[in-house]
Amino acid sequence: MRELSVVTDSKIVLLVLDGLGGLPMDPFGRTELEAANAPNFDALAARSDLGLQRPVAAGVSPGSGPGHLGLFGYNPLKYKVGRGVLSALGVGFELEESDLAARINFATKDEAGMISDRRAGRIPTEEASKLVDLLNENVSLDSAQVFVTHEKEHRAVVVFRAPDLSDALSDSDPQRTGLEPLPVEPTDGAGGEAKKSTELANTFIEQANEILEDHHPANTVLLRGFGMHPALSRFDEVYKLRAAAIAAYPMYKGLARLAGMEILKEGEGIAGEFETLTSNWDSYDFFFVHVKATDAAGEDGEFERKSAVIEEVDALVPDLLNLGPDALAVTGDHATPAKIKSHSWHGVPLLLSSEYTLPTAESFGERACAGGSLGVIAAEEIMGLLMGHALKLNRYGA
Amino acid sequence: MRELSVVTDSKIVLLVLDGLGGLPMDPFGRTELEAANAPNFDALAARSDLGLQRPVAAGVSPGSGPGHLGLFGYNPLKYKVGRGVLSALGVGFELEESDLAARINFATKDEAGMISDRRAGRIPTEEASKLVDLLNENVSLDSAQVFVTHEKEHRAVVVFRAPDLSDALSDSDPQRTGLEPLPVEPTDGAGGEAKKSTELANTFIEQANEILEDHHPANTVLLRGFGMHPALSRFDEVYKLRAAAIAAYPMYKGLARLAGMEILKEGEGIAGEFETLTSNWDSYDFFFVHVKATDAAGEDGEFERKSAVIEEVDALVPDLLNLGPDALAVTGDHATPAKIKSHSWHGVPLLLSSEYTLPTAESFGERACAGGSLGVIAAEEIMGLLMGHALKLNRYGA
Repeated sequence: MRELSVVTDSKIVLLVLDGLGGLPMDPFGRTELEAANAPNFDALAARSDLGLQRPVAAGVSPGSGPGHLGLFGYNPLKYKVGRGVLSALGVGFELEESDLAARINFATKDEAGMISDRRAGRIPTEEASKLVDLLNENVSLDSAQVFVTHEKEHRAVVVFRAPDLSDALSDSDPQRTGLEPLPVEPTDGAGGEAKKSTELANTFIEQANEILEDHHPANTVLLRGFGMHPALSRFDEVYKLRAAAIAAYPMYKGLARLAGMEILKEGEGIAGEFETLTSNWDSYDFFFVHVKATDAAGEDGEFERKSAVIEEVDALVPDLLNLGPDALAVTGDHATPAKIKSHSWHGVPLLLSSEYTLPTAESFGERACAGGSLGVIAAEEIMGLLMGHALKLNRYGA
Repeated sequence: MRELSVVTDSKIVLLVLDGLGGLPMDPFGRTELEAANAPNFDALAARSDLGLQRPVAAGVSPGSGPGHLGLFGYNPLKYKVGRGVLSALGVGFELEESDLAARINFATKDEAGMISDRRAGRIPTEEASKLVDLLNENVSLDSAQVFVTHEKEHRAVVVFRAPDLSDALSDSDPQRTGLEPLPVEPTDGAGGEAKKSTELANTFIEQANEILEDHHPANTVLLRGFGMHPALSRFDEVYKLRAAAIAAYPMYKGLARLAGMEILKEGEGIAGEFETLTSNWDSYDFFFVHVKATDAAGEDGEFERKSAVIEEVDALVPDLLNLGPDALAVTGDHATPAKIKSHSWHGVPLLLSSEYTLPTAESFGERACAGGSLGVIAAEEIMGLLMGHALKLNRYGA
């Protein structure tokens, strides 16, 4: 890609309906997408290449991290986004490349030093938020900056900023009550690169224990999911694209930032996201637009609500087409069938529109996509297709 | 898989109709599977995911070894089952992990020491069997146990059992008459790990020549296809499955044993295999059921007989479904079209039934599978799909 990609005036849109893929509630029924009354998507499908895409591997249900890495063209089995990193992105923390992040749980330690509640009674957000302030004011590490950011209830994120950090660290969370917290240990051996990071993490926990001593039930912290910024090549380097992201949730903005995209301030709701797209149209070559509500409806098991969200997006499709994207993909980061109420391993519908397509069906749906001209492909292949359809790739070889 | 797989109560069945894939005898006709009157398979297909699977690589016709390794989730280009190993499995020899096996041909050597018949006039099984006894009684190696087992006519297997053996050995079979037998030589260089094995093999051949001296036409042996037990991760380790195999032929039992499956004693015929499945249903999480007769009919070029075998299995499908498998795959280890009378490279029909499917057709057949929601996949991806559909895989990534 890096060798073949060229700068042109053409514009690419990657429209991601989170958890788009679905299933019929009974084998003879229709999926959420098939059941949706989506005349604009259907008309577009009749002029588009269709296919199914697999986010990670056969039978494997992806989290949001690997789901998006695949869509952005990275191999999600090769590049990993740790829990700590995803949490940091989720709270909008602007992670730098050398930062080390971990998820924090506020927890309860009894007099014998055993963990009696791994979630500190799920303390209210307001209280936990004060404890986070307390940690930020009082923790002091010799060789690193430390940033604690609250997520929700008992959950927070800690980011260590210093040179030469490593995420080869074990969790301090013992995963069960009645046990002592574990010391954080290097997983790359005693003399490895994680020595400094291990000391930072354990010193942080030691100081947090002193600071929180009188704040029962939240009198200790458990750390898990140490992770660092994955070393992703940036969109401007690989694809020579000025890339922008439009997403309502911090986690997706953060994932896009990992790939080197610029984050645009989005308007209200899905319509607001499309307005942002319109008003920034001239300034970028590539737009990642993320719609969350499809996934949320699927997770809640609400088949009709998921179809309704698709219909809401469908109504905005004419505005998008009026902008005249040269290549447009509509897909999801994974399936979230209402039937399963969870991310799943199923193939995700993929519609690819450009001037150079081989249409095979009259509607946008899983079954139409199953017979499409793109076949069943890996998510990480989509970026190549978009670049090709936008005529942004030189010929390979003489 | 090893990291994501979890133990649950759900049950998986992999039903393999050997050589299931077929072709129309003329381009406008139906395949063996399409022509079969198989109402139960058709009804199941209407509720299932369909696809075609490719055992090894485009255009490549697999032997039984690679065909089954793929179905069991191993990359058949990475893991190899040598001719000697397959022969040992085929005679029901319980190969240990450090054993070295080779195929033996009884052959005829003339007075000048040249091979005049590579098959010793295809001596009758009865006579060859006596010569095998003679070898077992009289061969004596200082540093290894040796087991010779008869296969059929001029064919037998030899297994060497000792520590530190290697299969980096060349054949002694010169492949043509009028030539001297070749000395067995190490293929990993003179000072390599195969030195001991080379000496064992050549000493074995030397002793066999003395023992067989007066048994013209079977007055020598030719060795080829040296192989060792492939280092496959076991099903219980990778998938955390208690896996059992039901197969009528020793070779398939042996292949299943390589993967760590337990071999169940099968009843009479195909119906007997299904009875074994029923009576062992509660004791395992995974069942590999192997039906041989489809392949045999294909090899004989008997189109209608192959369809009839499919119909015989079809009649047993209701019994299988009554057991309530959570995920069921019906497929073959390769195609054996009656038109070709041989294993072939064609895509093999794959039906995957579970509660979480996206059906696309009303019948089970090659063309229905070609348009299915699974697309064209590698055989080694089937195990992941089965694990996913049985809800035995954790989510990948945060």
